[in-house]
Amino acid sequence: MRENELIDQIRRLAGPSPLVKGIGDDCAIFRPHANEDLVFTSDFVLEDRHFTLKTHTAADIGHIALARSLSDLAAMGAEPVFCLVSLAMPGKFPIQRFYKGLLTLAEKHRLALAGGDLARFEKVVADVICCGRVPRGKAMLRSAAKPGDRIYVTGKLGKPAKRPQPRLAAGIALRRLGVRAAMDLSDGISTDLPRLCTESQVGAELSSVPIARGASLEDALNRGEDYELLFTAPPKLKVPASLGTEIGRITRTKKILFENRPLAAKGFDHFA
Amino acid sequence: MRENELIDQIRRLAGPSPLVKGIGDDCAIFRPHANEDLVFTSDFVLEDRHFTLKTHTAADIGHIALARSLSDLAAMGAEPVFCLVSLAMPGKFPIQRFYKGLLTLAEKHRLALAGGDLARFEKVVADVICCGRVPRGKAMLRSAAKPGDRIYVTGKLGKPAKRPQPRLAAGIALRRLGVRAAMDLSDGISTDLPRLCTESQVGAELSSVPIARGASLEDALNRGEDYELLFTAPPKLKVPASLGTEIGRITRTKKILFENRPLAAKGFDHFA
Repeated sequence: MRENELIDQIRRLAGPSPLVKGIGDDCAIFRPHANEDLVFTSDFVLEDRHFTLKTHTAADIGHIALARSLSDLAAMGAEPVFCLVSLAMPGKFPIQRFYKGLLTLAEKHRLALAGGDLARFEKVVADVICCGRVPRGKAMLRSAAKPGDRIYVTGKLGKPAKRPQPRLAAGIALRRLGVRAAMDLSDGISTDLPRLCTESQVGAELSSVPIARGASLEDALNRGEDYELLFTAPPKLKVPASLGTEIGRITRTKKILFENRPLAAKGFDHFA
Repeated sequence: MRENELIDQIRRLAGPSPLVKGIGDDCAIFRPHANEDLVFTSDFVLEDRHFTLKTHTAADIGHIALARSLSDLAAMGAEPVFCLVSLAMPGKFPIQRFYKGLLTLAEKHRLALAGGDLARFEKVVADVICCGRVPRGKAMLRSAAKPGDRIYVTGKLGKPAKRPQPRLAAGIALRRLGVRAAMDLSDGISTDLPRLCTESQVGAELSSVPIARGASLEDALNRGEDYELLFTAPPKLKVPASLGTEIGRITRTKKILFENRPLAAKGFDHFA
């Protein structure tokens, strides 16, 4: 099949687009609303780093590739708008099934496929860029945690799902509730919590973490790929139990403690 | 070096950002102006497909990775705003030099680095996403060519430069002049002109193409990587010679002719 025919197939799979111009031109064209901020993220998934072709189907890979970016939108409290998908793959890879997996998740969250790039390569590499919208000035930030804030997490940690579900509804609900500081847990809370603390120039004391069934405390702290949201809120903000479990508090000290001992960052680091 | 330190280094290289939030959070935050459309494109560069480490330095690769996306912005007549860069690379790859090459080109066009992703991989893979802005409804499109339009190209074809310069100033000048239909030449005019004609549901008759010094007619038609703009304009629109050379006209027939014979698409196709 030639590139043009392949792009036509993907365009049909993608369905109608809310963009001024979607797939088929040099760029996608998007017309922003007044009084909104747009948020952008890009995430790689790489064969034999994030998945293998023995353990994951093409549809699984499409799902994961999009889920990683959508989880970043969830962390900002953003509503998904559109994505661009860059995909490189060997000749035998079932491209249509990759897009089916990706578009099933996209439709669930009303996200449009606006464009991207396609190339032949010896391994499967996908880079997904997502755009989301939030009311102006209302995005939740890593840098907005304040001493005295309580720390929460949206679910249980330590047991990655094969097809993780990004916490978009929770992110939007938290932003509407008035939460200002959040991030998603992708590399393990022992690695991610220090990132939030660094951006906010604060420390943290964790008293406990909710552990997923079948996972150990070690998994919950370090394993990563949780796709849950870590967020903080001042004590006067009542956070419903359905939105998060309180696990500690933000301090002025810049230390990160778990049960009163320093918490070592043992989560995933591509460059450690 | 750990991932956090590497990201800090890149953040310092990137300099101050016009975004509400640049590198350092789950997403970059951009505040759009009223009365503008935003255009988006993503482009892969892959080791041993688009470049080799024997023939290209890390700085060359950074330049090319960004030039490909900026060329798509040029094709829409857009002003560059920001980019996200996803980079995967083996341990020995000089990441800082890649960013130097990329950021030198970015600064020339006042483009901000807003974020991206970093990962270890056995080959160098970069995906660059660019966002540009155009006055509302004014983006040049592949689908806007009309029968009777004259066809133009911005430069000479057939001799790719090692560090191609995307035609952003020309794109903006053409859009301001009133040009409505354009695309960039990445895969060779024999492959790209049919794409423009398909999107516009028209045909084309080429009478000549400007051939770069040292290139053959075959190169000019098929070699690709020209980074010039192909555009069309009605006969009454006077296009200054400094902006483009007339090479033919758009027809109703849906045929693509060169010197009165069918022009075979022999340019680059990843999937042929």
